[in-house]
Order: sequence, then structure tokens, then C-alpha cells
Amino acid sequence: MIEYVQIQRLGKDSDISSAQFGARASRLAKLLKLGLPVPLAYGVSVSAVSEIAAGRLPDVATLLGQFGDRAIVSVRSSPVKRAWGGPETLLNIGLNDALHAKLCHRLGEAAANALYCRFVQEYSINVARLDPEAFHGLDEDKCGTRDALQATLGIYSDEMEEAFPQNPEDQLLQVLRSMARSWGGTTARILRQAHGAPADAGLGLIVQRMALGLGVGESGAGVVQFVKPSTGEPAIRGRYMPKGQGRDALQPGKSALYITGDKRGRSLEDTNPKALAELQKYSEIARLGCHDALRFEFTIEGGKTWLLDAAPANRSPRAAVRIAVDLAEDGAISRKSAILRVEPANLQHLLHPQIDPEAKPKIFARGLAASPGAACGRIVFTASAAQACAAREEASILVRVETSPEDIRGMHSAKGVLTERGGMTSHAAVIARGLGVPCVVGASGITLNVKDKTLTTKDGEVFYEGDIITVDGTNGAAMAGDVSMVLPQVDGAFSTLMDWANEFRDIGIRANADSPTDARIAQQFGVDGIGLCRTEHMFFDEDRLTVMREMIFADDVSDRRAALDRLLPMQRSDFAELFAIMQGLPVCIRLFDPPLHEFLPHSREAMQELAEAMDLPVSQVISRRESLAEFNPMLGMRGVRLGITVPEIYDMQARAIFEATVEASAKGEPVVPEIMIPLVSAAREVELVKARIDAVATEVQNETGVQFTYRLGAMVETPRAALRAGDLAVNCAFLSFGTNDLTQMTYGLSRDDSGRFMSAYVNQGVFTEDPFHTLDIDGVGELLLLASERGRVAMPDIVLSICGEHGGDPATIEFCRAAGFNYVSCSPFRVPIARLAAAQSAVRGTNKTTEDLVVT
Amino acid sequence: MIEYVQIQRLGKDSDISSAQFGARASRLAKLLKLGLPVPLAYGVSVSAVSEIAAGRLPDVATLLGQFGDRAIVSVRSSPVKRAWGGPETLLNIGLNDALHAKLCHRLGEAAANALYCRFVQEYSINVARLDPEAFHGLDEDKCGTRDALQATLGIYSDEMEEAFPQNPEDQLLQVLRSMARSWGGTTARILRQAHGAPADAGLGLIVQRMALGLGVGESGAGVVQFVKPSTGEPAIRGRYMPKGQGRDALQPGKSALYITGDKRGRSLEDTNPKALAELQKYSEIARLGCHDALRFEFTIEGGKTWLLDAAPANRSPRAAVRIAVDLAEDGAISRKSAILRVEPANLQHLLHPQIDPEAKPKIFARGLAASPGAACGRIVFTASAAQACAAREEASILVRVETSPEDIRGMHSAKGVLTERGGMTSHAAVIARGLGVPCVVGASGITLNVKDKTLTTKDGEVFYEGDIITVDGTNGAAMAGDVSMVLPQVDGAFSTLMDWANEFRDIGIRANADSPTDARIAQQFGVDGIGLCRTEHMFFDEDRLTVMREMIFADDVSDRRAALDRLLPMQRSDFAELFAIMQGLPVCIRLFDPPLHEFLPHSREAMQELAEAMDLPVSQVISRRESLAEFNPMLGMRGVRLGITVPEIYDMQARAIFEATVEASAKGEPVVPEIMIPLVSAAREVELVKARIDAVATEVQNETGVQFTYRLGAMVETPRAALRAGDLAVNCAFLSFGTNDLTQMTYGLSRDDSGRFMSAYVNQGVFTEDPFHTLDIDGVGELLLLASERGRVAMPDIVLSICGEHGGDPATIEFCRAAGFNYVSCSPFRVPIARLAAAQSAVRGTNKTTEDLVVT
Repeated sequence: MIEYVQIQRLGKDSDISSAQFGARASRLAKLLKLGLPVPLAYGVSVSAVSEIAAGRLPDVATLLGQFGDRAIVSVRSSPVKRAWGGPETLLNIGLNDALHAKLCHRLGEAAANALYCRFVQEYSINVARLDPEAFHGLDEDKCGTRDALQATLGIYSDEMEEAFPQNPEDQLLQVLRSMARSWGGTTARILRQAHGAPADAGLGLIVQRMALGLGVGESGAGVVQFVKPSTGEPAIRGRYMPKGQGRDALQPGKSALYITGDKRGRSLEDTNPKALAELQKYSEIARLGCHDALRFEFTIEGGKTWLLDAAPANRSPRAAVRIAVDLAEDGAISRKSAILRVEPANLQHLLHPQIDPEAKPKIFARGLAASPGAACGRIVFTASAAQACAAREEASILVRVETSPEDIRGMHSAKGVLTERGGMTSHAAVIARGLGVPCVVGASGITLNVKDKTLTTKDGEVFYEGDIITVDGTNGAAMAGDVSMVLPQVDGAFSTLMDWANEFRDIGIRANADSPTDARIAQQFGVDGIGLCRTEHMFFDEDRLTVMREMIFADDVSDRRAALDRLLPMQRSDFAELFAIMQGLPVCIRLFDPPLHEFLPHSREAMQELAEAMDLPVSQVISRRESLAEFNPMLGMRGVRLGITVPEIYDMQARAIFEATVEASAKGEPVVPEIMIPLVSAAREVELVKARIDAVATEVQNETGVQFTYRLGAMVETPRAALRAGDLAVNCAFLSFGTNDLTQMTYGLSRDDSGRFMSAYVNQGVFTEDPFHTLDIDGVGELLLLASERGRVAMPDIVLSICGEHGGDPATIEFCRAAGFNYVSCSPFRVPIARLAAAQSAVRGTNKTTEDLVVT
Repeated sequence: MIEYVQIQRLGKDSDISSAQFGARASRLAKLLKLGLPVPLAYGVSVSAVSEIAAGRLPDVATLLGQFGDRAIVSVRSSPVKRAWGGPETLLNIGLNDALHAKLCHRLGEAAANALYCRFVQEYSINVARLDPEAFHGLDEDKCGTRDALQATLGIYSDEMEEAFPQNPEDQLLQVLRSMARSWGGTTARILRQAHGAPADAGLGLIVQRMALGLGVGESGAGVVQFVKPSTGEPAIRGRYMPKGQGRDALQPGKSALYITGDKRGRSLEDTNPKALAELQKYSEIARLGCHDALRFEFTIEGGKTWLLDAAPANRSPRAAVRIAVDLAEDGAISRKSAILRVEPANLQHLLHPQIDPEAKPKIFARGLAASPGAACGRIVFTASAAQACAAREEASILVRVETSPEDIRGMHSAKGVLTERGGMTSHAAVIARGLGVPCVVGASGITLNVKDKTLTTKDGEVFYEGDIITVDGTNGAAMAGDVSMVLPQVDGAFSTLMDWANEFRDIGIRANADSPTDARIAQQFGVDGIGLCRTEHMFFDEDRLTVMREMIFADDVSDRRAALDRLLPMQRSDFAELFAIMQGLPVCIRLFDPPLHEFLPHSREAMQELAEAMDLPVSQVISRRESLAEFNPMLGMRGVRLGITVPEIYDMQARAIFEATVEASAKGEPVVPEIMIPLVSAAREVELVKARIDAVATEVQNETGVQFTYRLGAMVETPRAALRAGDLAVNCAFLSFGTNDLTQMTYGLSRDDSGRFMSAYVNQGVFTEDPFHTLDIDGVGELLLLASERGRVAMPDIVLSICGEHGGDPATIEFCRAAGFNYVSCSPFRVPIARLAAAQSAVRGTNKTTEDLVVT
């Protein structure tokens, strides 16, 4: 069994050396192979570390012998994956009274005292596990005195009832055992599992000759990287501590130097330009050789620059994009690798819209800019109300005094968060940043009354639940109404990466877009079309809502038609505008879906108003509402059921679509509209709707003298539609899976009502994930596969897609690729994420079959 | 091609002869073979009739030649299946002026005039298609005069512009053509399709020598059967018309005779006992020879008795049972045949409970006894409320001023119907009888206010929606409250048939029974156990409801446990009683299923009362209600979701079940309780519940020192549970399909809300049947098959069953047999229907595979 091996002898394959000795050892080996100055180092293998943890005694004598007589070494952790963390580095192993005496001579007494004192304290705390409080008052600044050193050694011997170990081999043995064992501790295990580590995650260790950073000539330690963490553009960033060791330069309160000339203080560039030039040269060699921008931990020892450790440079999501693209453009990595370098979910941080600089919003509160981006929606005061809004596909802003863990699902469902209390590290701020939700915290001018559901500004203005506000998490402001926004300026690297994603991806990406605004955003993000245009939102504008209600209160078919005739031109211009924006790209329009009662008011007051407006007795308004009320609206009279029972609605919509088609095709690219029937559960539903829509198409063609084609399809969102997909397909050009509703029905679980127990369910592992966030591959996924297979048997050319919220989820995209779907459709702001995820899936080339994905 | 053949030469196989010449011809052939006196008859084949309809001229000369010179014949329809109807019989073909002259001589002028006159009129109306009004005033009584005959012939020649055809061959030709063509007419087609006839339903015709029924000596015609239509017991029933023809004896206003001595008038037994004795002898020969009790159409001609036609004797559903059993006991048919003779659905008419004669109910209204049986339930005033009750598995009585077609689904859902207006042939009465729902109509003392939802009695007492009443459709009374009932007295033949059903059936039949009453009924009907005991109904009793609400309002786990501890002994005694009644037969108990908000009051008034009772501010009651309210209760916090989030409820129920098991096993047969987990959608749900229930079982065993076993299973009622049945099965002894909820979720269709469009959907053929009445084999059925297959792969011995309302439906039972299910469970009153349907399916031995049933 390989126990320890000189780092530079590690094999070329970094995956193998990482698995055997850990990622850090593997990277150091690479630097050595590139000829960079890394002090002599030996790797203790992962298997050796686990044996040491189990109690075996390693042969430290031989190991230490490699470093020569009286060597001082460090031990650094080298987990198989860097993200898994690992025990703290321990420096200066090998120091003892004898060596201390020699160093007094060589470095001066103060430096020697400081080194020894520091080593004894770190050993005491990290290896002997003494209470750090024991060394209170003996901090580093005082360690330079002989008294402090004696006190420190005294504390050790008092507490341990033995003198500080003088044998370097004993010291190293204890350090290795301590670090090997701490890897198995509960805290370490939980922390690394949070970063995706498996139960048997391995740790290697690195024993390295110390470059002391103290002594004669220029000496010190620092960290440096040559890209700007926020953007990824070339820049020098870091700190340097003369006469320092390890990461001293990063400790607050230390008088560390800047790296380049800086008006805030002295810099390495000022004091040692040669060292900086060396580091810059090393960095470029390492960047090309290691295929990534790195961050060095370096030490200057008597004028000689050593690289002790290297890690990927710190980078924001935006910087990650720039770094990957620059590497690829410099030929250091392939475009495919660049695609894989960026975590798709992180792109959302780049994509938040911002308040339009031209806008003159009415700001009613200012607070801390806790999570960037701007968002607009209806005020809700509880997490469950936010979830209910999301289920109704309504944007909401969650307003709370402060948030707590119970609010997390609500925060996920809200478009933005505003809290009265809390700072930049409050629960709301931390979670919102994690979720990528724009957030303003500590808006202390406002007063919330959660019982009455009101928000009162410091000027006494009152907002009620349902009122629309906008929060600006970039600038820390809350504004009344729907403030206009602009897309963020994304740099050229982002566009380049997106272009590359298009080169590789093999599945279409469309957007769910209900409005011209949505459609324009989608266009800018480079979609292949609109996969879901929900027409019902078009009826909620005030002028249309009135006509809509007239339609609902119509006594007979002719009155109903009259109301619909007034809606027709509005719908036609909606569609014509969408077609114009999309310039000939496909637009899939879902026919009217929600139950009619959603268009009637709820409060007594609003019903009275409606009665006045419609010149009806209020009792009639109430009784109409009652007659339309449903026990389970999700499973009620909506979608195609409404389309068949009140066919005039779909007739009107079909006419609006076709007239808009004629209009748009005359002005620009020819349009082939796609019409989608919602909530299908039987093939005959499609037949009946198709017959009427065909008739309307013929009418419009005869009236206008213009020929056009259209594509009819069904939204598969009931389990039965999935099972009978073969029957449906016969009359369909496409089937699009509405995974939101399909998930609700497959689980028998209302999304609106699941909030009350979903957290408990996920925590207890009843559901591995909330199936409304992550596609349930084993249940819903099987229905998707079964339906797609049957659909294709019936109609080999049928177009298959997903248009639920899952459409933007990388795991779902992987699934859709495996199932051979034609496209996924997601919200406009998720389009880049989806494009990147699709490209990654294609590049990884796993080409999993669907059997790999569903366990039956 | 066989064109016509002498009836007695038809082959022995009655199926073949029926297919070739029709069922009537086939039966006549049988009677002839039995040596019974049937006049000479020839059958015109089905294929010949369809050619005649298409325009081919049949060779009537040869046919008529068979009957000898100057024969008088009749033509009778002989459809392939009797139920398909057919054109009216035409008598006396061959009569003309010459023959009339001869008959004047032989029978007397009046009789000859009457015969000829009748023939001309019938020919004119049925063959020449003259308006019957043309013969107004020339009715049969006047036909005996020469003037009337001349007038009749005159009308014919006036209308037809030609003399009445004198050539018998022409007459017969026209009769055959007319009857052949009328079979293809729209009315005839629709009528027979309503009786299940296929599009190409065939008709044969019978040409038979007339037995005149007039003339010298005893002459006349009648109908007779030798079983009582209401009960099937031996009895003589019929009418006889001296000097009559055909079915004259059945015409109202005619002075027909009774058959046996009758105080209401003269009888054949008085006037011609020999003829009666002959008929009785013929009947017994025919009964044994034709394997059924028959009804004869007979004619006495000059003292000689002829059988012109025979058909199955009229019989009620109860009589059908008796007749079939008697035939089998007499060896005329096998027991298997007897099983097939009774339509399972018809048994419901025998099985309605009746008001206990010992009961002293408070009758608040009397009306007409429109549909027999008694039923009890909550008052509802609309069909949709009745459907909603049914969906909640609550019994309801639909109370209407009168019903209309829109109410049919509500009537189907209600347990009983009460109307203020209407007679025995009103819509409510007719439909209720058809549906087998107890019904009282014309309860004119009551006043309904549908808006306020009140029923006011003539004494001024007011009933509200939700109040419990009982209707007695056997005696025409409506009573307050839940009046005790007894099972109907079913005769020995019924028990015998049920015993035979058990001999043949190969699938278990259990009952859905929530209460001791249900369990006793189920026991009496001979179940194999209880397949579904819904425990939540046990909590609605007033004393328990209070404790239940305390549990809901509990602030913490210990308060909740305290309330549950008070429910424990009540539940224990519920279960102990069920176990005792079922005497060791399996009892499958479903753990608590409904959402908690069902236990809280709705009206402000009731909430105030509850607040007082619980010593809480009313605001707290309201806010608790609001916090428990759900958008889609069907898909919400219920079933196992409640069981996992509030585990104390299932803990209590499990303890109650196990303690009752110990108690019942000590007193009688050892009990192995079955515990069923509702609304499962993930395997982990079963694991978690199982772990707690196992723990409770161990506790109870330790406490009591008594060992017992139990069987845990899952109710499969979400599509996901069906898809993941393999995972569930690992921890389950059984899987039971709750097809009500599974249908709702598979279609995405709330049963409560489907009423608004279900009729339109079924009428337009969107759904071929209401899937809540008839199992949707193509969708829900596929999930059942898929789940059962996966369940069996995981656990080969797993017990599979259906416990939704479909469990009592013959088509569903056929499906379950094909799928190899172990049992079906249905409501107690459907148990005999299910037993018979199961036996029929087994006897038919079709053994369809499931591929035959589901079209994928």
C-alpha cells in the first residue's frame, strides 16, 4: 500500500492522483511538473490516512527522514475534492527547545520565540485539544518574548501533566493522528456532506518542508490571484505580510501590504517588484498548465519565492463565466470544458433585472441591499400566501418583520422579499442571496400589521395584501406599483459562453411568456420560441376584466358572444404583438385555462361594486359566485372542460390567433401559430376542440383570402392524458407536458396546500425533494416517458416538450434529453440557465437512456 | 340461400336457428319438436328478409302453395333477439271477396265481415300506410256489418286509387316487403339499439296458417303463463277472449275472461276446463323442453287448442330468481345456467331495507310510495349537493319540489328522494324506480324553500339542509331522524341462488362497512370479510366530535394526546364490536383519512357555540378554521400526510385496533386485523407509519401478554402510488385500490365539481360513461394493472383488491378477475349483486386476459 510518496512523483492523471492523495496534493504535483518552486513535499495517501484514523501507527521516522536533519515541516489536508474542507493546516512541526536555540541564533530571539510559541499554542489547541481560552493574553504580538514562550510551554505542561513533546517524530505522529481522526468527526462530516461529499469521502495529507517567511533578507507570506473576483477580468488581488507565515496576511488587524501599488497603504510592488513579477509569471504558467486561474499561497524566504499551495481563484458567478471563456480563448481549455466550468444555477445571479435608470419610482422605504436584482409583485404577509400566489402563477413580494426557517419555502415562491428588521447577515438576507431572490432588509421606516395584513409607511401611507410593489435589492429600496425594469448588462464573455452553449446543445429551449415584456426578454436571451403563452393573464387588465365579467354574467349564448366579440380585438392585438416580437419563431398559445370564478371578486365590497357596475342586484352577483364556487378548483371546471361546455370562448381565441397570424404574416416572417388545449383527459376532447378550431380557421381564411397553417396540440397534465397519449397524438402536432399540474395529480397533492407539511416531509425524507421544485423522475417522470413513447408510436413526428416550471431545471433537462424531447420551455430568466444546462448535458455526452433515470 | 323453410325442420341448435330465422321461429320449432300443437308455419330467413328489404321479390307463390288452396295466414316478426322488437303481426292474409263469401257461409256473415273488415283495415294501415284516422268510426264493433265492410273497402280504393288487392300472393308479397322495410326505419332502429341491438341486427319472419278463433264450437284466443309474475311461484295468470283473435284478450275494455275461476268475472276454467288442462300440460312440457317458464299466445279453434307463439313468462326480478332456481332444481337447466339467468343489477330491487315494523318513527309527511325501500340520510336540496355528499361518502336524501332531467345524477348519488309534487308516473317516480332508489313523491304537506334551504312540515316544523331524515318508499312516508330498518325478507330461492354463486365464483367479495349495522348486513349477505372500514365516520357522533375538536385545538402534543386518550376506549369498542360481528372473518380498517377542517363547524353560529363549549374566544375558533382551510381539500393535508405530521392519531387508532384484537380474540375466533394506510404516494410514508404501528403492537403485546399478528397494507389511490406499487409492496401484506380517488386524480377531476359538466360530457361522448359510475378501464384500469403487476413482482403473495364504489359493478368485477385480484369490496347492499356477477363471470369462463380489456 502506498503510504507516502514524494509529491512530484504523483502520476500525470490528476483524477487518479486526487483519488489517491487528494486534490491539493494533485495540484501541487502539477505545479512541480510545471517547474514552479514548491518546497519539498510528501503526500500521505487517502488509504493511509484512513488506516491512521483506525489506529495504525505510520512510519514517521522514515517520512521525516526525507526532509533531512532538524527539518521544520507543515501538514496540510488534501481531501479528494477541495470543497469538502478538512482540518486546519499545522505549521512549524519539528520545533523544540534545541531547534529554538539554533533559530535564536539564526533569526534572532524574537522571531524564534514567536515561531516556537505559535507552534506550541497551535499544537496544544488542534492536536492536544486544550481549551484556546487557556492561552488568553498570550496572543501573537506577545509571543516574541521569552516570558510568553515560557508561559505557553508552562500552560501545556500544566494542562497535559507532561512536558511539551521534544521529539519531532512524536510531534508529527500526533499531528497526523489528530488530523486523520478529526476527519471522521460529526461536525466535519456534516459540513462536507452539505457540499455533496459521500459517506466514504477520502482525505489525504501533505507533509511539506516549511518555507519560514522569517529571517534574513526579504521574507514574508501572502496570497495572490491575477483575476478580479467580481468580474474575472485580469487584475492583481491579494495581500502580503512581511515576516509572516501561512495566511497571516489575511487576518484582520494585521498590517499586511497590498500586492500592487495602492493609495491605502504600502504594497509588495513597492517593496519587492521582482517578487511580484515572479508571481505573475508563475501565475500565467500555472493558469495555462493547470487550465484554470489560480490563487497562490506563497512565502518569500530570504528573497526566494515559494508557492506553498494553489487553489482556483476566488470568483463570483460572473467572474466564473469570464475566466472560463478567457481560458478557452487562450487555448488553455476547450470550449466544451468552458461550458462545464460554469454552474448553470449560478447564472441567475447575473440575470436579475434592475430598476430602469430612467424610471422615477415612488420610493416608500429604504433598507439594506441584501440580495441584488429588482422584483415586482403583490404584497403577501405570510409564506403560505406566497406559495399560493406561486401556484396561481402570480408574482408576490413577501413582506415580513423578519424571516425564520419556516419562511424558506415562501421565500422560494416569492419574487422578492422585504423585511422590517435585520442586517446583511440576517436570515432573510442570507437565504435570499442563496435563493437568488432580490431582497431588502431592515426597511425600518415601515410598520407591519400581519393580522390586518397592512404595511404602513413612515408617511402613513397604507398598503394592503395584494397591492403591487417593487423591491430593488441592488440599491435597497421599496417602491409602490410596478416600476419599469431593464435587463442587466451582461458582458461579452456571457454572450460568448451562450453562443458556445448553442453550438453543443441538442435540445430546444423555449420560454414561457405571457406578455410582450416576457417575450422581449426571452428574445434577448436567445430562445427558440415561446413554449407556453398563458392567455388568461391577458384578461386581468381592468378594462378586460369588466368585459370578462359581462361574459360570465351573460344570460344566453348571444349575450356571451357579444362580450367575447369585444374581447376579440384585444386578444388579436395581444397575439399580433407577440408574433411581431418573435419574428417568425414558434409561439405556442395555450387556450383559456382557469375556472371562471377566478374572475369574480371575493369581498362583499367588491361584489357590491361589481353589482353597481353591471347594474345587477348584488344578490345576483353573490349567487353567481356561489354557483361557480368549487370544492377543488384544481380538479374542476376549467381548461378544455370549459372549452367544451362554453365553446364560444375558444372560438373567440382561435379567431384572434388566426386574425393575428394573417396580420403578422403580412408584415413580417410567416407565422405558424401553435394552439395548445389545456387539461385534456380524453382523446375526444381534442377531437371536439379541433373540429371547432378547424372551422374557425376556414372561416378566417375565407374572410381574409389568406391561407395559413397552424399546429394543434394538447397539454398533458393529467395522468390519464399521459396514459392515453397515443389516442391524443392522432389529432396532435405536439404534446407538451404541464409538469406542475401533472405533479399535483400524480401525487394527489395540491401545491397550494402542500406548504403546511412539505418541509416536514422533505426533512423526514418522505419525499427526497419537493416535487414542485425538482421533477419527480420516478413517478411523474415515468408518466412522461410512457406518454412520449405512446405518442411517438401513434405519430412518429410528434413534437414533445415540457412547459412546467421544471423546464428550467438542469436535472429535468437531462431527463428530457434522455427521453428525446424536442424542447423544454421555462421562464424567460431561466433561459440562459437552461441553455447552459442543455449544453453541459450534451457535452458530458452521458446519453443516459431513460432506463437509467427511472427505477421501476 | 335458404329462403323459407318449414319451421319444424329447423335444426336442433337454437343459437344457429335463431341467427338464421330469428328467436321466435327457433322457439316455435322447439315447441313443434316437443309435439305441441303449433299451426303449420314457414320461416323466412334473416338473409332473405334483408334481401326483400333491398328490393328483391320473394317467391310468394311457392311459399303460399305450402299452405294449400285458399289458406289464410299470418306473418309474425322473428328478430334474432326477442328484445329487439319488430313490426306488428299481420293476421288473416289471403282474405278476399271470394273467400269472404265462403266464410259467410261457414262462420256466419257477421264473423266473416268482421274478419275481412279487420284485415283490410290492418293491411291499409300497416302495409299501404294509410292514415288510421281514415277509418275513424269503423271500429271493430261495427265491422260485423256489410255496410262497414263496404265502407272500409271503399276507403281503401279511394285512398289508393285502386281496388283492395284480391290476389293472396300480392297481399303476402306486400306484407313481407312492408315488414322487411320497416325494420330498417329510423324509429325501429333507435328503439332496438336502446335494447342493445347492433347496427346489423337481423330480422326473420314467420308465415303461419291462421287458427281463426272464430267459428263453430269453442273458439277464441288468449295468453297464459303458469308462474306468478311478481314472485315466480307456480300460479295461473292470463286472459282469454272467446271469438277473439291474436291479443284481443289483452285489449282494455274488451270483455275478456280470466283463465282460472275468479270472483271478478267468468273464466276459461269455468267455460272450458279441458282447454285449460291442455294448456297446463303443454306449459309443463314446454318449460322443461325449452328450459324456461313460458307465456303462450294460444287460439282455440273449434275446440282444438293451438299454440301460436311462446315467449319467456313475464317476471319481476324476484320472480326471475325463483324461476331460475326452480328450473335448476327440476333438472331443466344446470346451476350454472341458473346463475346466468338473473341480471345482477336487478337484484337491487330485492335488497332494499325496510322500516323496522317495531320502530315508532315520527312521520312528518305522507306521499305516494313511488319506489320501494327505505333510506336515511342528510337533507340536500340540489342535485349537486347530493353528488357532493356522495363524494364525501355521506348518505343524503334529495328533497325537491319536483325533479327534472338535470337531477338524474343527483338522484343517482342520493340514498333516497322526496318530492313535494308529482304522481306515480312523475319524473321522480319513474327515474327513482329505474335507479332502484327509494322514493316518495307528492308529499304535498311539506313546503320547500330552496333558497333558504329549509323544509317546513304542515305542522310548522322546520328541517335544514344537513338534518337527517328517513324516507319509506314502500309505504310512502317521510320521517325525522335515523329510523331503524330491517333487511327485506328474501325468499329461499334467493338464498339458493346465492349459495350456487359461491360454488362458482373465484374472487372474494367483501363489504365496505363502517358501523356494526353495516357489518351485520354484510354478514347476512354472506361476505368474505370487511374490505374497507372507514374510521372517520366514527368521530362524527356528538360526544366524540367534541373530543375530536379538543384534539384539533390542542396547543401541544401532550394536550393532543390527552384528547386522543379519551377517544381511545370509544374506538376500541367500535373495533371490538366489528370483530365480534365478523366472527373471525378479516376486517380491513383504514386509518383516519379526512382533513381536520371537516370536523370544525362552518356557520358563524356554530363556531360561536363551539367557542362557548371549549371556553375559547370565537376569534380563535375562526382563525383555527381559517388556518386549516384548503384550496383543494381533496389534494391536501389528509390521509397519511396527517398520519405523519400528527402521528398521535394513528398511534391511538393502532392501539385501539390491537386492544380490540386482544379482547375479541379472547372471546371468540382469533382476529388478524388488517390496517390500511390511506393516500399513500411514496414508499417512505408506509415505512414511517409501519415503524410506529409495529411499536404500538409490541407495546400492546407487552402490556397484555397476548401475542397477535396483524397485516399492514396501503390504499392505492394516487397515480404515484400505483406507479410505485413495487416499492410500497415491500412493506405491505396487501394493496387495496381506492378507485374513487384514483379516478379523481387520474382524470384531474373532482367528483364534487364534475356534476356541472358531466352530463354534457357523457352526452357528447367525451367520456363514454361517467367514470365515477363505471370503472375507466383504459386509464384508471391501466394504472391498476400496472400496480398489481409491480406489486406482485416485489411480493408474490401480496393480496390485491378494489375497495372503491366500483367494487360492486359487474364490469369491474370482470376486470378484477382478469387481473387476478383477490377480492372486491363494495357496499353491503351490493354484496349479492357482486357475488352473482362474480359467479357469472366465472361461469362464462371467458377468462379474458387483461390485454383484452385495456386498449393501449
